[in-house]
Amino acid sequence: MGPHPLASGLYTDFYELTMAQGYFLQGMQDITAVFDLYFRTCPFGGGYAVAAGIAEAVDAALSVRFSDDDCRYLADRGLHPDFLAYLKNFRFTGDIDGCREGDMVFPETMLLRVAAPIIQAQLLESLLLNIVNFQTLIATKTMRTVHAAQGRPVIDFGLRRAQGQASIAAARAAFIGGATGTSNTFAARLYGIPAVGTHAHSWVQSFDDEYAAFAAYASLYPDAVTLLVDTYDTLRSGIPNAIRVARELSAAGKRLRAVRIDSGDLYEVSVQARAMLDAAGLSDVNIIASDQLDEYRIADLLQRGAPLDMFGVGTKLVCAYDQPALDGVYKLCECGGRPCLKRSEAPEKINNPGRKKVVRCVGANGRFAADAILLGNEDPHDLTGLHDIALHDRCICLDAAGLQYEPVTIPLVRAGTPVASWPTLAEIQAFAQKQWQRLPEGCARLRSPDPYPVGLSGRLARLKRSLLQRRHEHD
Amino acid sequence: MGPHPLASGLYTDFYELTMAQGYFLQGMQDITAVFDLYFRTCPFGGGYAVAAGIAEAVDAALSVRFSDDDCRYLADRGLHPDFLAYLKNFRFTGDIDGCREGDMVFPETMLLRVAAPIIQAQLLESLLLNIVNFQTLIATKTMRTVHAAQGRPVIDFGLRRAQGQASIAAARAAFIGGATGTSNTFAARLYGIPAVGTHAHSWVQSFDDEYAAFAAYASLYPDAVTLLVDTYDTLRSGIPNAIRVARELSAAGKRLRAVRIDSGDLYEVSVQARAMLDAAGLSDVNIIASDQLDEYRIADLLQRGAPLDMFGVGTKLVCAYDQPALDGVYKLCECGGRPCLKRSEAPEKINNPGRKKVVRCVGANGRFAADAILLGNEDPHDLTGLHDIALHDRCICLDAAGLQYEPVTIPLVRAGTPVASWPTLAEIQAFAQKQWQRLPEGCARLRSPDPYPVGLSGRLARLKRSLLQRRHEHD
Repeated sequence: MGPHPLASGLYTDFYELTMAQGYFLQGMQDITAVFDLYFRTCPFGGGYAVAAGIAEAVDAALSVRFSDDDCRYLADRGLHPDFLAYLKNFRFTGDIDGCREGDMVFPETMLLRVAAPIIQAQLLESLLLNIVNFQTLIATKTMRTVHAAQGRPVIDFGLRRAQGQASIAAARAAFIGGATGTSNTFAARLYGIPAVGTHAHSWVQSFDDEYAAFAAYASLYPDAVTLLVDTYDTLRSGIPNAIRVARELSAAGKRLRAVRIDSGDLYEVSVQARAMLDAAGLSDVNIIASDQLDEYRIADLLQRGAPLDMFGVGTKLVCAYDQPALDGVYKLCECGGRPCLKRSEAPEKINNPGRKKVVRCVGANGRFAADAILLGNEDPHDLTGLHDIALHDRCICLDAAGLQYEPVTIPLVRAGTPVASWPTLAEIQAFAQKQWQRLPEGCARLRSPDPYPVGLSGRLARLKRSLLQRRHEHD
Repeated sequence: MGPHPLASGLYTDFYELTMAQGYFLQGMQDITAVFDLYFRTCPFGGGYAVAAGIAEAVDAALSVRFSDDDCRYLADRGLHPDFLAYLKNFRFTGDIDGCREGDMVFPETMLLRVAAPIIQAQLLESLLLNIVNFQTLIATKTMRTVHAAQGRPVIDFGLRRAQGQASIAAARAAFIGGATGTSNTFAARLYGIPAVGTHAHSWVQSFDDEYAAFAAYASLYPDAVTLLVDTYDTLRSGIPNAIRVARELSAAGKRLRAVRIDSGDLYEVSVQARAMLDAAGLSDVNIIASDQLDEYRIADLLQRGAPLDMFGVGTKLVCAYDQPALDGVYKLCECGGRPCLKRSEAPEKINNPGRKKVVRCVGANGRFAADAILLGNEDPHDLTGLHDIALHDRCICLDAAGLQYEPVTIPLVRAGTPVASWPTLAEIQAFAQKQWQRLPEGCARLRSPDPYPVGLSGRLARLKRSLLQRRHEHD
């Protein structure tokens, strides 16, 4: 099983170490480098992403150490004794700025900005991307699912189909995105998320018949009876047996809380199950659905009027099945005080140079109007318009009269010391829901959303143009 | 960061615990249950899967313990003191059979079979599925990629886009599937996989110009120089600077090992880069490609004759991007000595009842002919044909004359004690390659493969039919 990866400096791409040693042996270790962590496209064809993993990424960055074992391993790989001596005393001493976890984020706006001696900033690349890419992806997927469910609870059932131990971070991110609980007991304890679950088909099969299994379960958990009704035949056996148990519970002053349907045509079956329950005077018994659900299938079921009260979402949620990776990158934007640009034939692959911050322009109605990327100490009140990111110089006009400005990037770490206190997971979940409500309406659509306006200040756009120009002259 | 999940009995779905407590409080804990772990469809539209995660799953099963902290947490969730006392002394005392890691496996053939007191067998469900589903998925994806590369090395570059800490198990599984190394230093050390990596764009950007960056890198690592040539312009700047450095290395009796191209039209750019290198007398310099590669893109590039010598594969590999989950399930097949069946309208969702084993029928040429699922102590030599899994009773005829029989499921654990010794990862990798070579030719195709024949013995097919019949009579 080995040591915990996030406690080891080796949880990084090997080239970070060969580069770091290179900087060290070249005497470049005191150069300050600034890296931006951002993504280029919203996942799932959506109009936003929900920032997640920020606290865990920053905590991990501050915990990076190289143990004697780590150094011995690297010595065996041929790394230089002087550099290994440096690594033995490694700890992060730089600055990190970033967005608040749970905030809405958009292409090109930084989720994290690291400014530190180049070796330190470089070594954190793989670690920060690994954590923030995945949690942001899952929080976003969950937010989409939760809103497709229109206020009905959504539960993470994904442990068995998750990508191994990604299940744990997935449970955290799903909670941030609005899931109300998880089946993953380990993650539930670790993060203080409600642990949820009742019984499987095997429970029913291990009894002589379905009624006996239901009755036994109800006698064991009389205050939280949810029965899985599709082991044999939902409508001919499962629901009738559940009704029988519900009546017995009633007689004892208890109630059947819910039935769960895990297969078949969820629309047809739930409509008929609802009718049978109602006819039996059990209109307070909820129907929970599971089985390959995602935001699209939930939206479709509810749009057709399926009488479903809660959703268990597994594979499609915890793997982000339709897009299992966020395209987050970590790009050098300043080195030794000099702004840096990585050229590309694809305009969206050209990074924004210099040490920047992100400010949100908010309309008088409290809704987000646009995100502005500015240089260092520019004042957003001076903005009259924004240049769009692909540098076609289409201007996003701002009606400055009604606008307020809110910071998106805030200081998280200064000289290796945390300066922000982390909110609780429940606070992050609430913040994410609040921020989602403030999106421009068209941005929140599941399909074909309006793109959210993100642009550069005039000064930043001019810097970028001049650096692109200079490179052309070099060729 | 918390404790290691695989060391905690809480790394399971909460319903496994509520069911387990149910069995306990019902006095059912001594009933022996048998569960099969298998999948229903080969991933990626392929014709096979590569079994992986077996050793880690079994080791984890034997390590499951409930610490005092775990029990306190469960007490707070309302679990019964008597059951918690049972959990405090929990350890697996049953039997596990399974396939050899690296073997080719097919729909319906068990990767693991657990026979144990019902509480133990039930509690392991989520853990075993979580480990085996993911590693089998990634080993299979890698095997496909490696064969698309036609013998050229394939390296796992996926850490930054992996689903969080899934990166570690992914590196292990990718190595089993045939990857020659990983960029993930932590996984490399943990599993003894070669750690691979050179430098990123940021190395180049942190110098005044590209040549200076290349020259510095070559001076630091003269025996392993691979230069990333696409920071500014691959053909106008990167390759000419690499050639200049190659000549300087030559003069010093060293050589440039490779250039890496990470963007652009990999076919066009590699053809031109190759021509430039050859014209400079550097035909021994390899070209490494990366950038969103998968088996399809690699096959296409090589089919068109792209002069590529090695592939760095990231996102698409470690997330299994086009199908990020295997549909593995864990189904009760025997309970208290009674064979169990889970009915379903979908024939492929009906499990195979009883305590079974899998035997491979091998032709005189050494190639696999079919996999047979048999009951307990049936002798494969008595087989004359196999019944196909969906119970349409199409018969797979076996020309028994030339057939040999090899066991697929072997004993791994007896009464809680390991009885198989685990091969090294390198041995598993070699075994997987050997077994892949023995697939029927049409089964190994990337697209539209021939389905591999898997069937039930006559006795098992009759048992299944009779149980299906019996259920119908119950209705």
